[in-house]
Amino acid sequence: MKLIDRLQSAWEHSNSLLCVGLDPDLKKIPTHIRSLSYPIFEFNRRIIEATAEFVCCYKPQIAFYAGEKAEDQLEMTMQFIRKHCPNVITILDSKRGDIGNTAEMYAKEAFERYQADLVTVNPYLGGDSLNPFLKDEKKGAVILCRTSNPGAKDLQDLKIGDKTLYQVVAEKSANEWNSNQNVLLVVGATYPEEMGQIRKAVGNVPFLVPGIGAQGGDIQAVMKNGATKDGKGLIISASRSVLYADSGIDFAVAAKKEAQKLRDEINQCR
Amino acid sequence: MKLIDRLQSAWEHSNSLLCVGLDPDLKKIPTHIRSLSYPIFEFNRRIIEATAEFVCCYKPQIAFYAGEKAEDQLEMTMQFIRKHCPNVITILDSKRGDIGNTAEMYAKEAFERYQADLVTVNPYLGGDSLNPFLKDEKKGAVILCRTSNPGAKDLQDLKIGDKTLYQVVAEKSANEWNSNQNVLLVVGATYPEEMGQIRKAVGNVPFLVPGIGAQGGDIQAVMKNGATKDGKGLIISASRSVLYADSGIDFAVAAKKEAQKLRDEINQCR
Repeated sequence: MKLIDRLQSAWEHSNSLLCVGLDPDLKKIPTHIRSLSYPIFEFNRRIIEATAEFVCCYKPQIAFYAGEKAEDQLEMTMQFIRKHCPNVITILDSKRGDIGNTAEMYAKEAFERYQADLVTVNPYLGGDSLNPFLKDEKKGAVILCRTSNPGAKDLQDLKIGDKTLYQVVAEKSANEWNSNQNVLLVVGATYPEEMGQIRKAVGNVPFLVPGIGAQGGDIQAVMKNGATKDGKGLIISASRSVLYADSGIDFAVAAKKEAQKLRDEINQCR
Repeated sequence: MKLIDRLQSAWEHSNSLLCVGLDPDLKKIPTHIRSLSYPIFEFNRRIIEATAEFVCCYKPQIAFYAGEKAEDQLEMTMQFIRKHCPNVITILDSKRGDIGNTAEMYAKEAFERYQADLVTVNPYLGGDSLNPFLKDEKKGAVILCRTSNPGAKDLQDLKIGDKTLYQVVAEKSANEWNSNQNVLLVVGATYPEEMGQIRKAVGNVPFLVPGIGAQGGDIQAVMKNGATKDGKGLIISASRSVLYADSGIDFAVAAKKEAQKLRDEINQCR
């Protein structure tokens, strides 16, 4: 199935635009899980079982596995998602960006080793660095455009003529790099105005939207500025607010409640 | 020891500006190595033993390990370098770039797990995404500035007023992000003119220079445009031309000859 069809089907099947970011921080995982053999996987598994009915997407952030020497638990997590909720799509959040043969190896990592549907990528190295992630229409790339952090302005807001750098990235992504309809853009929830500009420029290109929850982005503003006319076009990601909704024995119940609440808040604005 | 002092000492101790990139491609590794239990490590070990006297730096490209599920062999390689040639510095070439707590995990990966001296990073997310890699003066970051690939022009050459984006990155790197003297810049050998401009703008900030060897960059032009007045300031990296100088049983001998030749070619221009 083409990536874009798989994404449409994930939105419809789940009736949700919510994505849960799987950023398992060992310092924050409940103690009764931390003592298990594969604590990161066991934590993720419980989070996935609790939240699967409310999400269209899971997005593991690879740094949390690489920093802990736990790539095996990321593989286990990806396998579990495919088995437990095959309609949910997966984004490997690794923000890759490198040249030719190296980018090919990163594509192998994301799509073969971890079997992700999408991988986040950084556009600074240009179009040829993105090709390996975009050549298969069944897979795709989420290109960093306007990120949610304060430092985003340092480069992304620089003016190129009458446009900003992030606008140039958005337009190149939509017009030059999207021939397989498998490009998405990262657009932070913390900058709703910028999101509206980008939506106008790129038509129906889907956005991955980090920054709600712990980072303070506003769901109503995101939906108003970012959604496409059919009330979709967005994968809205929350991590810490769901994963660590409760630090005790009932963390999965709390995560479920938080995911349902976010899904419903989003759907009320559709 | 401060990163900048460690780098100076590596240059002086080796009398070399050469770096060998450890990008072990299983398809290109000689068959008699490919059949061993840890073929990537065994290949690297022989390359390191053969070339250590001619280099100031080794730079493993993490994609070649991540794509093959071989992070353990990257750890073994880094340990071997520290033991076999403790004066040589190491750059983890992973081009990381992410926000706050995630960047912290990537710094943990590079500096604690792999114990690299430096890590390559992508500046697109701005200064706050670089802080975790720069806060310890004993470690440092190599910031992508003007890369060696054809697509580099897509974003890096865009005009911000009368400057290009890569010039803005170079100046921010030198003036805003370098308070611990532990910033380096990636400047591709394939663009010697651009390299000259950047050298003028950033004083003695060291450059990591990929693009000689297989990519065709010219050593004389690099030295003329990139070296600092004391004939240093550069870490000139070759990967494929050294690693795969010969595909048979004598690959390490061929790698040694190629490394010596490159080291000498560089030194003749100092």
